Amino acid sequence: MRISEFQRIINEMYSDKDRQRGSAKTFLWFAEEVGELASAIANDDKQNTVEEFADVFAWLVTLANVEGVDLEDAVRKFTEGCPGCGKMECQCDNKLTNVS
Amino acid sequence: MRISEFQRIINEMYSDKDRQRGSAKTFLWFAEEVGELASAIANDDKQNTVEEFADVFAWLVTLANVEGVDLEDAVRKFTEGCPGCGKMECQCDNKLTNVS
Repeated sequence: MRISEFQRIINEMYSDKDRQRGSAKTFLWFAEEVGELASAIANDDKQNTVEEFADVFAWLVTLANVEGVDLEDAVRKFTEGCPGCGKMECQCDNKLTNVS
Repeated sequence: MRISEFQRIINEMYSDKDRQRGSAKTFLWFAEEVGELASAIANDDKQNTVEEFADVFAWLVTLANVEGVDLEDAVRKFTEGCPGCGKMECQCDNKLTNVS
């Protein structure tokens, strides 16, 4: 599935209430899901981790819909190489690749 | 671009260091980007908001790579209808659509 297609589906599914709610309150729901993802990973609960990845992504897309951002367009900064070094296999020594 | 293709690109670009770093430390970098997205939205900085959406998505995908989760597969829970009510245009009255 295309990133843009997922964004369109989420928009059609939820957009009426999303836009009423606005960015700040939508961010609260997104942040709650981020916390649930942290919890699933910390508890090493694989099935729940998969569910929470989906929920975080859905709320990120919801927030992008409210903000009027095309996520597929936004990620072009990564698709032609690392934004830091320009390579398809990153060679740069910055925070994007910091292991610590 | 497919969700799975973006995940593959990010994997090839960054995976060596991602896997050394592990989930917990990767989550810290992801959370930092979530904070930067909040800041961009709060400051109504449209160009930076677009950049931060891309960064949050890239770090979410990175975290999925470290956890061995296929994000395109995970979002199937949304693509055949709302997980709450099953409808393509959500009719349920739960937190997914709560406007407050």
